[in-house]
Amino acid sequence: MRDTYHEELDGISDSLVEMTRLVRSAISRATTSLLDADLPLAEGVISADEEVNRLHKKIEETAYALMARQQPVANDLRTIITALHMAGDLERSGDYAVHIAKIARRRHPDSAIPPELRSTIVEMGQVAERIVTKAGGVIASRDVSTALELEGDDDRMDRLHRGLFHVLLSDNWKHGVEPAVDVTLAGRYFERYADHAVHVASNVVYMVTGERPEEIIDA
Amino acid sequence: MRDTYHEELDGISDSLVEMTRLVRSAISRATTSLLDADLPLAEGVISADEEVNRLHKKIEETAYALMARQQPVANDLRTIITALHMAGDLERSGDYAVHIAKIARRRHPDSAIPPELRSTIVEMGQVAERIVTKAGGVIASRDVSTALELEGDDDRMDRLHRGLFHVLLSDNWKHGVEPAVDVTLAGRYFERYADHAVHVASNVVYMVTGERPEEIIDA
Repeated sequence: MRDTYHEELDGISDSLVEMTRLVRSAISRATTSLLDADLPLAEGVISADEEVNRLHKKIEETAYALMARQQPVANDLRTIITALHMAGDLERSGDYAVHIAKIARRRHPDSAIPPELRSTIVEMGQVAERIVTKAGGVIASRDVSTALELEGDDDRMDRLHRGLFHVLLSDNWKHGVEPAVDVTLAGRYFERYADHAVHVASNVVYMVTGERPEEIIDA
Repeated sequence: MRDTYHEELDGISDSLVEMTRLVRSAISRATTSLLDADLPLAEGVISADEEVNRLHKKIEETAYALMARQQPVANDLRTIITALHMAGDLERSGDYAVHIAKIARRRHPDSAIPPELRSTIVEMGQVAERIVTKAGGVIASRDVSTALELEGDDDRMDRLHRGLFHVLLSDNWKHGVEPAVDVTLAGRYFERYADHAVHVASNVVYMVTGERPEEIIDA
């Protein structure tokens, strides 16, 4: 009985890692669709989110069933509850990738990103991928020190986000209001995506140590 | 023993209602601070969020302790898990009120809202307040039909949100990029605030019926 129980816990962990893989692919493709005004790619990101949502629901159902059936306490209970939080955060990350793809779709056949901001958006996409890749690794390894590293990556994202506004609000901005609105929203979505992925790692720290890294929580 | 247990469950419910009261006050004051460039009011919203976060943590701790100690099953387990979701959603609503207050603070002594958008922002604040007030009522009453009403209020919020962009992207927009960025972010924050408050009511429906109103979840 306990073996089945731990197998199911492992199954939840595998599903979480799979979610990180899917939302990593989503942000990578969403970033490209935004830069290149690639409509089929954007549509692909939007429709692929269904699978992320399906995994989220599957994790919730497994977790609730486990709690009801096994009545776990202490560490096991903490593991299940934090898994629920992680699934929720990954589901939201996926939503933000979709939001970015929808900006690409809305502006197609134009690109929503003016030339002078392309490199910033490229790097925001890369940082987002790096964070969620590490989060996936941390779920599998339960390596607290790697989990704490993500804070630094998130700082990088915050600097890139501030850099966007710097360009947007400078006197050199020649693109008017519509691209400014797109860039404002896209920047916000990248930043939120990363925030949720960092929360996933923060939950691994909590799962393993019972303590929350305050600096990650306050981020 | 079961009496203490149900008293603690009631305590969680009371704390949730108190959270709705606090985040309602927060969005009301944040809206005014944004419209009137009222710096002390904005600062007040920002500092008052600590109490929302404290209640969120208190609910989490009580819920985890209850689950560990009482090992609830079926309905009781569902009640506790959904209470955790509601507390998380209300905590995030509070964060969005803070984000709005921070826009007011950033633009002080100017108002971030141009004259032609004041009435839209006033109404967004009112709709947000209405939704969270109803959500608080629904937590206390467990009245599913009122909970389902919130969807209509959220539709109103979405229309107001679209209306902002309509003004922002029209040829008559004379305020340039910086106010456009502020309005874009403020609009997004009102919309997200309302979304989280609607989720709270959706969770009450789930708690009472075991079913999720699909249309609310997909919002």
